[in-house]
Amino acid sequence: MNKGRLEAFSDGVIAIIITIMVLEIKVPGGETLTTLKPLIPKFVSYILSFVYVGIYWNNHHHLMHAVKKVSGQMLWANLNFLFWLSLFPVAAGWMGENHFALWPVVVYGVVLFLAAVSYTILVMVIEKTEGENSLVVNAIGNDSKGKISLLFYVAGVALSFINPWFGVTFYFIVACIWFIPDRRIEQAMRQQNTIDEKH
Amino acid sequence: MNKGRLEAFSDGVIAIIITIMVLEIKVPGGETLTTLKPLIPKFVSYILSFVYVGIYWNNHHHLMHAVKKVSGQMLWANLNFLFWLSLFPVAAGWMGENHFALWPVVVYGVVLFLAAVSYTILVMVIEKTEGENSLVVNAIGNDSKGKISLLFYVAGVALSFINPWFGVTFYFIVACIWFIPDRRIEQAMRQQNTIDEKH
Amino acid sequence: MNKGRLEAFSDGVIAIIITIMVLEIKVPGGETLTTLKPLIPKFVSYILSFVYVGIYWNNHHHLMHAVKKVSGQMLWANLNFLFWLSLFPVAAGWMGENHFALWPVVVYGVVLFLAAVSYTILVMVIEKTEGENSLVVNAIGNDSKGKISLLFYVAGVALSFINPWFGVTFYFIVACIWFIPDRRIEQAMRQQNTIDEKH
Amino acid sequence: MNKGRLEAFSDGVIAIIITIMVLEIKVPGGETLTTLKPLIPKFVSYILSFVYVGIYWNNHHHLMHAVKKVSGQMLWANLNFLFWLSLFPVAAGWMGENHFALWPVVVYGVVLFLAAVSYTILVMVIEKTEGENSLVVNAIGNDSKGKISLLFYVAGVALSFINPWFGVTFYFIVACIWFIPDRRIEQAMRQQNTIDEKH
Repeated sequence: MNKGRLEAFSDGVIAIIITIMVLEIKVPGGETLTTLKPLIPKFVSYILSFVYVGIYWNNHHHLMHAVKKVSGQMLWANLNFLFWLSLFPVAAGWMGENHFALWPVVVYGVVLFLAAVSYTILVMVIEKTEGENSLVVNAIGNDSKGKISLLFYVAGVALSFINPWFGVTFYFIVACIWFIPDRRIEQAMRQQNTIDEKH
Repeated sequence: MNKGRLEAFSDGVIAIIITIMVLEIKVPGGETLTTLKPLIPKFVSYILSFVYVGIYWNNHHHLMHAVKKVSGQMLWANLNFLFWLSLFPVAAGWMGENHFALWPVVVYGVVLFLAAVSYTILVMVIEKTEGENSLVVNAIGNDSKGKISLLFYVAGVALSFINPWFGVTFYFIVACIWFIPDRRIEQAMRQQNTIDEKH
Repeated sequence: MNKGRLEAFSDGVIAIIITIMVLEIKVPGGETLTTLKPLIPKFVSYILSFVYVGIYWNNHHHLMHAVKKVSGQMLWANLNFLFWLSLFPVAAGWMGENHFALWPVVVYGVVLFLAAVSYTILVMVIEKTEGENSLVVNAIGNDSKGKISLLFYVAGVALSFINPWFGVTFYFIVACIWFIPDRRIEQAMRQQNTIDEKH
Repeated sequence: MNKGRLEAFSDGVIAIIITIMVLEIKVPGGETLTTLKPLIPKFVSYILSFVYVGIYWNNHHHLMHAVKKVSGQMLWANLNFLFWLSLFPVAAGWMGENHFALWPVVVYGVVLFLAAVSYTILVMVIEKTEGENSLVVNAIGNDSKGKISLLFYVAGVALSFINPWFGVTFYFIVACIWFIPDRRIEQAMRQQNTIDEKH
């Protein structure tokens, strides 16, 4: 099967998701600077979501790079991941429109959580297909970063009921953790190359 | 001719269709959880349609993989298929907006039916171009799965006049039938490889 | 320079144009079949425009296939062509919304005409870059098909002032003329291959 | 790492940005020619923005062509650039909707300025990764064109407070300066080829 087409399709969907999020920022009604003011929370929500989708694209890019065989299960796990990612624009729009109120922040966190779960499933399916001792398994390891993220999302959602800004802060922290692309795969690949050259 | 560009264009269109469907789920008006309630049928409609477009992408992916020569007729049969696929967002939106009422469910079924017919035409054009004994012909065979789907769509549309949920159930069953990607092609390719290796 | 990226970008833009046209068909307000009635002219306009964009994609596909060197001028001629193509959705939407009234039909014809002119410019720039005796020059020849189209657009726009349906008919005839993809290039390539094999 | 996928993703995002800008030109309400009149400033704004995005795509095309190694930093600098580019549709729509009034013109200029800054950062990151004596460093040199652009944007924004049309004129001049694609890279590549051939 063809890895290239899976990457191209995923890139297409992610490119569209990251771009249609900006459509939630509607052209303001007046021509004065004050008419931009209601757009500020939407803009903050857009930046956060843009960074999130960017992180996922980066990690997806690294993950797929390590894939050797594409299986039918992988295609579906990938589509499942893209499905949850596709809910980012509407969740981000709702959160921005309502100035980071309780329920929009909670729902945004749930969408982030489910996207992270679906990404974890994708990684697991790939690891199963590629087999032990594969590049992906060596690179991801026990995936402590992924597990911490899931914990932080749950904490963020829970703490939002005290104050929604706690939730936003936790989501922001996860973004910071992931901001650094998955160097583990890069490192594993370099090691693999070194091993290959020795033989 | 260039198969890669046909795949890339189809991937682009399918990626856009699958993503703009989410635009039918408008950002809700209020900030409470109850304002999400009217979105539930739209969300269900979105999931069903996402799975459908995902199935078509998967099968298209497998089908194109088996293609060796691209003809002018194939380009048009492919565009015809993409045309019917492009009606999914508006049909799904109408069905979700009206809580699976009679006519929206019927029209959705008709669009599903015509998309399936156009896909069958695409397969037939490819089989004709590739010739007998080709990979595609061996793989698809008499296409019983495709014929059953067409029958189920007709049944679903007809039974909707008794209760629209019968229709939705039938559409859902077809999705389940196709959920498993077209392993027939995968199998045929493996056999082909075995034969090639023997010679 | 990289022909692949020019093709990929053009495919992306054309894929988006062909798909966002469907967004002009808004989800109808009611749940009865009669609420679909106002969509019929929009749907007809969508079909006509889909076929047009499909024809351009097909011909662009063939044209680029014959290109050997990509120049800076070619990039701009290509962007100019994509610009006029990008006006199809709004022109088609206006024509459909107003049930093929005079001015929408005239403006649609003018957009078709200017897209055709920009495509002709693209062909000329490519012919100039590729040089005489190139594949493209042999294939396109004196481009009688392109010249007839321009004439028919002008005629269609003019006759719309008697009755807009004359205009629509003329636009439809041009679509029929071009429906057959540019076999001239296919033929020229086959001849080229035959010549290459002889040497 | 894979340069192809970075290019494909950037092309996807840029293709979507350049195309969704046209969605700001809404289908006019009436069927007479006069209903098109309010669209004129939007159309002018669309043309200017289309040319800008086209210029960036062209230069990005040339820049990436000279890249040999893709680093994690490069991915983020590229995403940052795409972020600012994604604000063009809403900024252009606001400017067009308000007939080039003061604040929309100022904000448009600020977006242009920040996109230019983010592009400069991308160039700097690439130059750092590729190292001295690389193709990119030789080609871009001290980037006088980029520095002049930044200056013109600042001047345009400042002069808008006297008359917004001064601002628009300055933005237009920058577009003219860049209209000619970055031939410096093309020249440097040709020289490189000549050097390579000599050895």
